[in-house]
Amino acid sequence: MTAQPQQFASDNYAGACPEAMQAMLAANAGSAVAYGDDDWTQAAADRLRALFAKDAEVFFVFNGTAANSLALASLCQSYHSVICSSAAHVETDECGAPEFFSNGSKLLLAPSADGKLTPDAIRALATSRSDIHFPKPRVVTITQPTETGQVYTIAEVQAISAVCRELGLKLHMDGARFAHACAALGCSPAAITWEAGVDVLCFGGTKNGLAIGEAVIFFDRSLAEDFDYRCKQAGQLASKMRFLSAPWIGLIDSGAWLRNAEHGNAAARRLADQVSGLPGIDLLFPVQANSVFLIAPEPVLDALRQRGWRFYTFIGGGARFMFAWDADPVRVDALAADIREACVGSQVELAA
Amino acid sequence: MTAQPQQFASDNYAGACPEAMQAMLAANAGSAVAYGDDDWTQAAADRLRALFAKDAEVFFVFNGTAANSLALASLCQSYHSVICSSAAHVETDECGAPEFFSNGSKLLLAPSADGKLTPDAIRALATSRSDIHFPKPRVVTITQPTETGQVYTIAEVQAISAVCRELGLKLHMDGARFAHACAALGCSPAAITWEAGVDVLCFGGTKNGLAIGEAVIFFDRSLAEDFDYRCKQAGQLASKMRFLSAPWIGLIDSGAWLRNAEHGNAAARRLADQVSGLPGIDLLFPVQANSVFLIAPEPVLDALRQRGWRFYTFIGGGARFMFAWDADPVRVDALAADIREACVGSQVELAA
Amino acid sequence: MTAQPQQFASDNYAGACPEAMQAMLAANAGSAVAYGDDDWTQAAADRLRALFAKDAEVFFVFNGTAANSLALASLCQSYHSVICSSAAHVETDECGAPEFFSNGSKLLLAPSADGKLTPDAIRALATSRSDIHFPKPRVVTITQPTETGQVYTIAEVQAISAVCRELGLKLHMDGARFAHACAALGCSPAAITWEAGVDVLCFGGTKNGLAIGEAVIFFDRSLAEDFDYRCKQAGQLASKMRFLSAPWIGLIDSGAWLRNAEHGNAAARRLADQVSGLPGIDLLFPVQANSVFLIAPEPVLDALRQRGWRFYTFIGGGARFMFAWDADPVRVDALAADIREACVGSQVELAA
Amino acid sequence: MTAQPQQFASDNYAGACPEAMQAMLAANAGSAVAYGDDDWTQAAADRLRALFAKDAEVFFVFNGTAANSLALASLCQSYHSVICSSAAHVETDECGAPEFFSNGSKLLLAPSADGKLTPDAIRALATSRSDIHFPKPRVVTITQPTETGQVYTIAEVQAISAVCRELGLKLHMDGARFAHACAALGCSPAAITWEAGVDVLCFGGTKNGLAIGEAVIFFDRSLAEDFDYRCKQAGQLASKMRFLSAPWIGLIDSGAWLRNAEHGNAAARRLADQVSGLPGIDLLFPVQANSVFLIAPEPVLDALRQRGWRFYTFIGGGARFMFAWDADPVRVDALAADIREACVGSQVELAA
Repeated sequence: MTAQPQQFASDNYAGACPEAMQAMLAANAGSAVAYGDDDWTQAAADRLRALFAKDAEVFFVFNGTAANSLALASLCQSYHSVICSSAAHVETDECGAPEFFSNGSKLLLAPSADGKLTPDAIRALATSRSDIHFPKPRVVTITQPTETGQVYTIAEVQAISAVCRELGLKLHMDGARFAHACAALGCSPAAITWEAGVDVLCFGGTKNGLAIGEAVIFFDRSLAEDFDYRCKQAGQLASKMRFLSAPWIGLIDSGAWLRNAEHGNAAARRLADQVSGLPGIDLLFPVQANSVFLIAPEPVLDALRQRGWRFYTFIGGGARFMFAWDADPVRVDALAADIREACVGSQVELAA
Repeated sequence: MTAQPQQFASDNYAGACPEAMQAMLAANAGSAVAYGDDDWTQAAADRLRALFAKDAEVFFVFNGTAANSLALASLCQSYHSVICSSAAHVETDECGAPEFFSNGSKLLLAPSADGKLTPDAIRALATSRSDIHFPKPRVVTITQPTETGQVYTIAEVQAISAVCRELGLKLHMDGARFAHACAALGCSPAAITWEAGVDVLCFGGTKNGLAIGEAVIFFDRSLAEDFDYRCKQAGQLASKMRFLSAPWIGLIDSGAWLRNAEHGNAAARRLADQVSGLPGIDLLFPVQANSVFLIAPEPVLDALRQRGWRFYTFIGGGARFMFAWDADPVRVDALAADIREACVGSQVELAA
Repeated sequence: MTAQPQQFASDNYAGACPEAMQAMLAANAGSAVAYGDDDWTQAAADRLRALFAKDAEVFFVFNGTAANSLALASLCQSYHSVICSSAAHVETDECGAPEFFSNGSKLLLAPSADGKLTPDAIRALATSRSDIHFPKPRVVTITQPTETGQVYTIAEVQAISAVCRELGLKLHMDGARFAHACAALGCSPAAITWEAGVDVLCFGGTKNGLAIGEAVIFFDRSLAEDFDYRCKQAGQLASKMRFLSAPWIGLIDSGAWLRNAEHGNAAARRLADQVSGLPGIDLLFPVQANSVFLIAPEPVLDALRQRGWRFYTFIGGGARFMFAWDADPVRVDALAADIREACVGSQVELAA
Repeated sequence: MTAQPQQFASDNYAGACPEAMQAMLAANAGSAVAYGDDDWTQAAADRLRALFAKDAEVFFVFNGTAANSLALASLCQSYHSVICSSAAHVETDECGAPEFFSNGSKLLLAPSADGKLTPDAIRALATSRSDIHFPKPRVVTITQPTETGQVYTIAEVQAISAVCRELGLKLHMDGARFAHACAALGCSPAAITWEAGVDVLCFGGTKNGLAIGEAVIFFDRSLAEDFDYRCKQAGQLASKMRFLSAPWIGLIDSGAWLRNAEHGNAAARRLADQVSGLPGIDLLFPVQANSVFLIAPEPVLDALRQRGWRFYTFIGGGARFMFAWDADPVRVDALAADIREACVGSQVELAA
């Protein structure tokens, strides 16, 4: 298998960062008790507790689908509902996983142009029905940063959690790219989560540089009751858990968790800076994290595809480019150059 | 973290074998399409098809709980039932996962002294009820080798599949330690699976030397319809799939899949040979694969615990020792010596 | 308990019609085998088969929530989806029952002004996604008449079933008020169901004059495989089934099934005819079946409430009046008179 | 349809008692608010609260499958387990309904000769495992009287609830024939339920003389949180609820609830008294409620079948006869006479 030229279609296209792989290799030493009762898992959970400055309950699961779905299911019964943005990944790209894990909890969608939920939208959905013919709202989930690359400010999260507390709702944060939000905000992980009123965070490891794995962090330990049983029953308890947990030690101890995110965010800005202002090119959303959504004429997109670039257009029709920990500035510049040339070519054609 | 002295409490205590880790590292090169549409995953599936000499449908999932539960759920509706041995792992150690994934399919238990199912037991359970007040049997699952380390012969599997076909039941094989069965029987993977009438196999990678991962193999492709959706919804689709699939290439290409199993089986025999015949020591089950179940006086077990040996006694009260790909003969001999000494000490005490 | 003056807030406010109660009383005679193996249940199923001129499979269940949810679940797996109108009762008023019974099947909503689905909307939803990150469409459900009182013509149902067949989708009809559609169309039950391509019908008994009970009718018997087990497991198999089935005999043999519906439809037209053209009053939807949705100034609605009239405004803000088999023309006229007076009063106020 | 000669194969073969039917007819008067917000439903719940001398939360559902499954699901999460007797109806005759409604909760079976659970059996099951690989026990369910017709004494229930409280388990009572237990014990409904430590009771209406319906009674109101949503989502909320609730008023106000049960119990004793001591005839269980289980030579059973008697032998091979509110003493005596004659015939044959 020869490696392919780097693509920016998804931050899942990246491999694992050296710090994570090194930690995985280091953990591959001799016998270790299975199912998480090993030293690495204990240490990894401690690292996360230290990172968040909070004595939280921490669980390691295999992927984001499961992390979010299990967390939501633990906050809901089947006849409850979850308020989310219409752009939320749990709604658009999980094949009904939240409904499956919860045995039927319904997602209530707030239409959202930029992917963000607002206190008003939450209040409207949470209070629109109060009869037993409609699922009772119990949880709000926000994606930080959103699927469109928008970062909630601390004040925005605080405002959301305030309305949640007022209405008796729990607040879940889908942090598939949580580190990118921290890097963008320049704030501590605590400031944008439990200090701002978040009850449960799914901290994405895969998009942060791991090969496999996410962490579910309950800041309120009482909400984590029996969550270990829930993980086990749902096929999310790794037998050789150290391979899932140890990479977090590498990520955190080395500072790579933040550095990786800063790198991705910078690459996004690098591209945006080079293509902004090109004729016919617009940014669909402000570039706040590690993604760039370009609005471009179809001939431009076609030209890019012909030059071998892969990208998706499923969000708002914009060409999405995602930058991971390994984004190569040379390749970013090459992409920018190709966009520029495609624009010029397209202009020429238009002029002709 | 310093590695602990090797223990034989579980074959999940072992790390990953070099061939698997090497393949995982090799796959960590550049960009690769996510969710399994990458070259490594294609190649790994091809390797398994070649190994089984069958154009099967192959899926890679995270762990055995999910592999077995998803496979059974795909063969059942919620009001159907699954026939298994009372010793089956799906019944005793999955925290209700089969019931969860299937939304309620019941396991019908055949009492079994040695952990094996028999055609007679299957027939009895499958025909005992035919009214709608009891779930309709649709699947038989056998563990090969069983949780007690017993290996079904080809003839035994054939006899089971014959009764399955007669009664309209599908045959699933929980192959958490499938390679150990192949090693014990000296037969091809095909001979003990689809050639003998098995419809779906869950091939255990973790206990065979991987860090993480199992393969679900549908020999009858029509049974695999939409199984990819099922995996996705259930949180079993890895985004960076190559890390789950590539290690299988290392395992198969190097022959480690079989060598690892032979090594574990040999270690089990090595222990058994040294302790058989010791006063007060008996084998709870014949040693056919990579486990040894010892019946020993409680003082002997206590003495072993005091010397730092870890083991479980949850199956029939026997002290279980499991041997993985990395079982160190020196440690096996040390264990044997400690058992011998404990027996002598115990005898002396008894005589005193 | 003294009976309250008749209200038209819901057709569930009505009692059971004499023909149904008489049949229930007649069935209360001596011993009868339980769980549906009795003569009344056989006869009731036969009556429905005769009514539909089709050798269909017929099941009797307790309510519409269960009828629709079980039928949809039988046509789907958990990772499949169901296409429906945004106004569909399964989406708006079943508290997540379809998701619960199916263990997670998602409803895909087609925005609809009048509550009807169209072939174009179905095609758009069914073809918008084809990746495994989104549930695979497998069923279309239409409500006949719709929750807004609109009746699909035979040609409309045929056009919908044609697109379903083309796209490999099954067609389910939520017939909570199915008889009212037959009455409105003046067609045979067969013409608007299986002859037009409907696979499964939930025929509403409660709104047609029964005390309790709905019928699930599979026109394609192969789709009904093991549906009896499904009903049993889901708590929808009546032990003294004759009380659920026998009233259908009364309903059908007497012709009340159609007469009741015609009566309700006529009452709706009677009200609409009297209030159309009143100042400030508009019909939110054309009156085609047994409901009238009035747009009226808030003071008018308040005046009606003060005069003791109950009604709901949850659909499009219109005041909904539903007419059952027992709608008393005198009360309908009284309602019309009160609306007229409220309008006049409101005008006077406005003029003042 | 002509009524068949009375059979005693099941107490579900009986119709509805006059008091229940009269109340249902009385409730069929004019408009009533749907979904339980009507006067009859309020009154029926009040009657049950008065009968139990407890301000309990009361819900009316369609059948026993749903009543028990919903109640258990409300006390459990999917990864919890329910301790019951191996003879419990929820295990043997509900087609996996408890697992379906709870999305996977496992039933842990205590082997039981007479169908009763004991404190020791509960303790053994509840403490046998405490690892996350096995569902965590959370509820105990007892059937009162048992499926074998055995009645728990007040002291027995107290002893069971004591061990439940000690171990943190909730206590559910499946009272499909609850009234028969009250009649047998001569105690108040309170004494054998909440006063003895029962948390939730499913009070069987159908076997007590109703056409349709059961009551779920939460003595601890905090356990009933959102149970109305649970019922709705699971298809157990009747739209014309009065027809489900009003018959309870008739049953309770008239005293029929107890009289019916006493009648059934007396009929059972009447049969038992006449056939005890007949050659070859034994009682499989003591006759304490409304069932008689006869052990009889196969020729005797055949002779009974030839004379047209229907009965089941699925419990312990005994011929079961169940007596409902309508058991006709003349038919009971006829059955006794036929058993006697069959025995004599059988003896003659044996002697010949």
